[in-house]
Amino acid sequence: MKQPITKASGQQEAFNSEKALSSYKRAGATEQLANRTLRAVRRDIGKSADTNDIYSSGLHFLNEHAPAIASRYSLKRAIMNLGPAGYIFEKFVARLLESEGYTTQVSQVLRGHCVAQEIDIIATKGDQKIMVECKYHNRPGLKSDLKVALYTQARFQDVQERGGFTEAWLVTNTHSTTEAGKYARCMGMKLIAWRYPYKGGLEKWIEDQRLYPITILPALPANVLSAFADAGIILVKDLAHFSVNDLVTLFHLKPKIAKHILASAQTLNSAIARS
Amino acid sequence: MKQPITKASGQQEAFNSEKALSSYKRAGATEQLANRTLRAVRRDIGKSADTNDIYSSGLHFLNEHAPAIASRYSLKRAIMNLGPAGYIFEKFVARLLESEGYTTQVSQVLRGHCVAQEIDIIATKGDQKIMVECKYHNRPGLKSDLKVALYTQARFQDVQERGGFTEAWLVTNTHSTTEAGKYARCMGMKLIAWRYPYKGGLEKWIEDQRLYPITILPALPANVLSAFADAGIILVKDLAHFSVNDLVTLFHLKPKIAKHILASAQTLNSAIARS
Repeated sequence: MKQPITKASGQQEAFNSEKALSSYKRAGATEQLANRTLRAVRRDIGKSADTNDIYSSGLHFLNEHAPAIASRYSLKRAIMNLGPAGYIFEKFVARLLESEGYTTQVSQVLRGHCVAQEIDIIATKGDQKIMVECKYHNRPGLKSDLKVALYTQARFQDVQERGGFTEAWLVTNTHSTTEAGKYARCMGMKLIAWRYPYKGGLEKWIEDQRLYPITILPALPANVLSAFADAGIILVKDLAHFSVNDLVTLFHLKPKIAKHILASAQTLNSAIARS
Repeated sequence: MKQPITKASGQQEAFNSEKALSSYKRAGATEQLANRTLRAVRRDIGKSADTNDIYSSGLHFLNEHAPAIASRYSLKRAIMNLGPAGYIFEKFVARLLESEGYTTQVSQVLRGHCVAQEIDIIATKGDQKIMVECKYHNRPGLKSDLKVALYTQARFQDVQERGGFTEAWLVTNTHSTTEAGKYARCMGMKLIAWRYPYKGGLEKWIEDQRLYPITILPALPANVLSAFADAGIILVKDLAHFSVNDLVTLFHLKPKIAKHILASAQTLNSAIARS
């Protein structure tokens, strides 16, 4: 039975069981768990549903039965929510780099050969000095395209000599276009995008390092996100150092909300540790 | 007496007589005509007005008293209306180049060193072969910024050798940022924007060549604009070759509209010829 669903774009399409199953499996679900999740989703959504309902229903089931898998399943949306502006994404990427031994500086203005250039992240380790351009989109449909790779390269060329940079990286939270990938490879620029490179994309990097962004926590209000980010709390594990009382005092949260946020963070932290 | 007006952004500001006067004079009005226009506008707009009312009222007065000056006054909006997409702007810039003896090709895909690149205009004359990047914005507030200049340069570097290009130009219908101008100068890229360079900006180029775009005609419906552009009618003077009957037959216009469009075009054409 083909069931019509409404996509984010407003278009209608038939509910695609294969697509749903493969998204559960990509998050780490076994064949059996994926099938059980699909059955739960089918029960939940009834006759009319949009992609959001399907997502929420699947996430709810996985959260109850396999929290670590649920966290991977919700990672893409979590990264999308690192907005509304790009600066939280920059700080997050800096944390990923630091976990690999790089020293980082975020949002620097450097004098280039021609003009002053805003460099999102400068990452150094040994002889390596990387100019990292971060491209944040707040909608999953927007791909980072050739123009982004082109201006990253031109910016790199402008600052390379004076800044003593050895390489340029472009890190984006969405997919990149084929042309952008081809150009980056050709110019020796490292491009990290969603599921690109195939086995070393952003989601893989995050999972390998187990550095989940705080936006993965359910029901984190937008104003709390900004306040946390300003205070350097970017990752779920950053929250481990805080008590309910700290959050209430430092961020003027209601005790109930502080408790809820910390409980989700702890559940997720131990699920990640066990996975 | 300071009168509040509403800007396109919704902000309120006091009506600035000096700003209005200088916009009339920049279009070629004498001191006297500028003052008369200002008085007419003040009479027209009454107590509450937005920038559109002020613009329309001034344009109306100038149209009656000095059509050629009115056309220059409305040029910026005409260029903004060369949308909604950028391809009509590309064709318009190609016409400007042709009037200076260049041979042009619009919207070409060329193989670069790394990837296939979309080149808006290839312009050749003698030993010169120019890669022209056109940047069209449909709102006057959006400036062409450093990133645009950067990707134009990187694109140029990618196609330069295989395409045998001698230089890169960036032509935009809006203002450009100071940084974009500085970078372009430093890299030897020619940048033509609104009132940039100071005495050789886009508006100056258009006026020197007397090549007014059809969007300068009052009340040209959007669907007619696209149909005209597809048929190669980009300039007011292109319309001179057509009769009312032609426009009715070829573009399925109502005779009344066709007549109105041709009459405005002829008035403007002769006003331009006399100016």
